[in-house]
Amino acid sequence: MSRLVLGCAMRLVAGSPLAQAKDPIQLRDMGSFHVGGRLIEITGQPIKEVVFTPGGVPAKMDPNGRYQVEQMYVQYFLPQNRKGKLPLLLWHGGGLTGASYETKPGGGDAWLTYFIRQGWDSYISDAVERGRSGWTNTFKGDAVFLPFGDPWERFRIGPPGSWNDDKEKRVSYPGMQFPTDAYGQFMKQGVPRWLTTDDAIVAAYVELVDRVCPCAVMVHSQSGTFGFKVLEARPDKVKALVAVEPVLGGDRNKVASIKSTPILVVYGDNARDHPRWSKIRQGGVDYAGVLKTAGGTIDVIDLPDVGIKGNSHMIMMDKNSDVVAGLIQKWLVDRGLGE
Amino acid sequence: MSRLVLGCAMRLVAGSPLAQAKDPIQLRDMGSFHVGGRLIEITGQPIKEVVFTPGGVPAKMDPNGRYQVEQMYVQYFLPQNRKGKLPLLLWHGGGLTGASYETKPGGGDAWLTYFIRQGWDSYISDAVERGRSGWTNTFKGDAVFLPFGDPWERFRIGPPGSWNDDKEKRVSYPGMQFPTDAYGQFMKQGVPRWLTTDDAIVAAYVELVDRVCPCAVMVHSQSGTFGFKVLEARPDKVKALVAVEPVLGGDRNKVASIKSTPILVVYGDNARDHPRWSKIRQGGVDYAGVLKTAGGTIDVIDLPDVGIKGNSHMIMMDKNSDVVAGLIQKWLVDRGLGE
Repeated sequence: MSRLVLGCAMRLVAGSPLAQAKDPIQLRDMGSFHVGGRLIEITGQPIKEVVFTPGGVPAKMDPNGRYQVEQMYVQYFLPQNRKGKLPLLLWHGGGLTGASYETKPGGGDAWLTYFIRQGWDSYISDAVERGRSGWTNTFKGDAVFLPFGDPWERFRIGPPGSWNDDKEKRVSYPGMQFPTDAYGQFMKQGVPRWLTTDDAIVAAYVELVDRVCPCAVMVHSQSGTFGFKVLEARPDKVKALVAVEPVLGGDRNKVASIKSTPILVVYGDNARDHPRWSKIRQGGVDYAGVLKTAGGTIDVIDLPDVGIKGNSHMIMMDKNSDVVAGLIQKWLVDRGLGE
Repeated sequence: MSRLVLGCAMRLVAGSPLAQAKDPIQLRDMGSFHVGGRLIEITGQPIKEVVFTPGGVPAKMDPNGRYQVEQMYVQYFLPQNRKGKLPLLLWHGGGLTGASYETKPGGGDAWLTYFIRQGWDSYISDAVERGRSGWTNTFKGDAVFLPFGDPWERFRIGPPGSWNDDKEKRVSYPGMQFPTDAYGQFMKQGVPRWLTTDDAIVAAYVELVDRVCPCAVMVHSQSGTFGFKVLEARPDKVKALVAVEPVLGGDRNKVASIKSTPILVVYGDNARDHPRWSKIRQGGVDYAGVLKTAGGTIDVIDLPDVGIKGNSHMIMMDKNSDVVAGLIQKWLVDRGLGE
C-alpha cells in the first residue's frame, strides 16, 4: 500500500529527477461561497442600543425583520493538473467542521491536500450551523457540546473505560494510529451541534450538489446519513459515494433508485467489537446486503481485514491516513473516476 | 493604480510571454491549526442519553467534566515563490469569519488570493467564538445576530434610510463599489458574535503572533481594536499594521511603546459624513495624531482623497478591491516588507 501511494506522489513531479519531500501544490483557482439557506421573519421585539466594542460608539439595533438562516459554507481548491474526472466533495462528521480534513492534530497533511495532490477538484464544506456556515438561535432544542474526554472512547481511540483526565494514565487501543499526543489539539477542532437540523443540513447539501455536480461525495460519521439522503435525492448527480465510518446507511425502501452509484464503506479497527460501534457497523453491513440484493454496488471494507490496523474513527487524521487515502484513491480510479 | 496592479501580476508569470487571465497559484504548503484556548470544569450536571442521528443508537453523554473553550482556527497558504519578507496575518471584522477575505459575494477574488499571488505567506483566522473556532455556552450575555437589512447602512453600502426589503427599492451611495446585486450572498457570510469576548479573542491572537511572527497584520473593522491591542502586547513581533476601516485605534497611553511599527489606516468613501462612521473615523484620526506626536509612523488614507471612490466598509469585496489591495501592497513594499 505504501508503494502505491509513493508511486502516485512520484507521478506528480513532472520532469523532476528526484521527488522532494513535498512538491508544490498548483491550483488553477481557489475560493469559497455559501449555498442554500432561507430568510425568516422575526417581529415584535424591542429596539436595542448596543456597544459593539468596549468604549465604542453605541449603535441602535432593531432585532425585528428578516434573518438569513441555514446557509452552508463551501471552500474549493481546483488543481492545475486536474486528474479526477469529477469534483470530489468532502463532508465532515458531527461536532466538527471541514477543518477535520485539513492538517492533522499535531501536524501533517490529512485528506484535503492528499486528494488535491491527486488532481481532484476538491470542495470542502461546513454543514449548516457548523463553522463558517454560521448559526442562529432559531433551531429547536439545545446545542450539544462534547466534554473534553468524551471523544476518546466515542471515536475509538481507547476502549471503553480507558479515558483518564491525567494524560499519563489514558490508555489507547494497541497499535493505535490516532496521534494520541495531540488529542488536546484535536479537541480544539470541535464545534457545537444541534440534534434537530438534519433536514436543513441535507437541503443545503442538495443545493451544493445541484451547483457543482455530477461528482463523487466523501462522507464521514454523521454525514454518512446526509450522503445517503442526498444520493437518494440526486442519484443522477452523485456518481460515487465514499462513506468513511458512516453512521447508518440509506433508506432500505429506496435502494432500487440508487443502484447505479458505486459505494465504498470503510470501517477502522475495533469497530466490530466495540459495544456501540458494533451496532452502528452492523446497521451499515445489513443495509449493504439489502442494496446488493437489489442490484447495487457497495464494497464494505473493514481495514484490519486488508491488513491496515489500528485506525480510530478519525481515519483522515490517523498516522497512516495516506495509506487509507491510497485505498480510496485506488477504488475511485478503478471505478473510472480518476487516474 | 490599475497599471501598478497589472505590473505586479505580470511579474508573477516567470518566462511566460503573455499573462493569462488567471495564473496558477503555486503553494509550497497549505493547512490549518488551532491556537489558544483553555480547559474549564463543569460539575453537578445529570448524565443525558442522546440520539445523535434520528433512528440511530442512543449514546450516554455525561455533560460534566472539562471543556475546551476559546481556541482560534487559523488556515495558512504558503506561496512557492515567496516574496513577502514576513508572514501576513488577515483578521476579519465583527459578525464575520476569515471567509470575508476569500471569494467576493457574487464571485471574484477578494484579498486572500490577491496577497497569496503577491507572494505573502498568508494566515487567515476565525476569531474566537466565530466560524471554525467553535463556540461554547460559557460566554457572558447573549450572542448578537444582525437582521438581514442591518449591514446595508451599517457598512455604508447605502446612506441612512436607504434600506428597503424590496430589492428594487434599495438605494446605494452613488458610484458604490460593493456588489449590491450579491447583498443576499454577502449576508450568508454572517455569524453570531458575543459582546463580552474581547479578552479571549485578543489572548488567542497573541498566541498566534507568538507562534508565527514577526509578521505584518491586517485588520478590518472590529479587529482594528484587536490589532492595536496585540501590537501593544507584542510590539517587537508585529512589524507592520494595516488597519482597514478600523473601529477605534490603540491605547493613547501606550503610543510610545509601539512607535517603531509603521501603521496604515484606510477608510472607504462616505466615512467622513456618515452619522456613525464620522465619529469612528474621527477617533482613529485623533489617535493617529497622538501617535505621530509621540514619534510614531501612521498613514491615514481616505480613499476618495487619492482618487479611489465608492468604497463601502467591506473594501476587500468591493468591485475595485484589487485597486485598494494594490495601494496596500505598495505601502508594504515601500516599508521594505515585500517586493
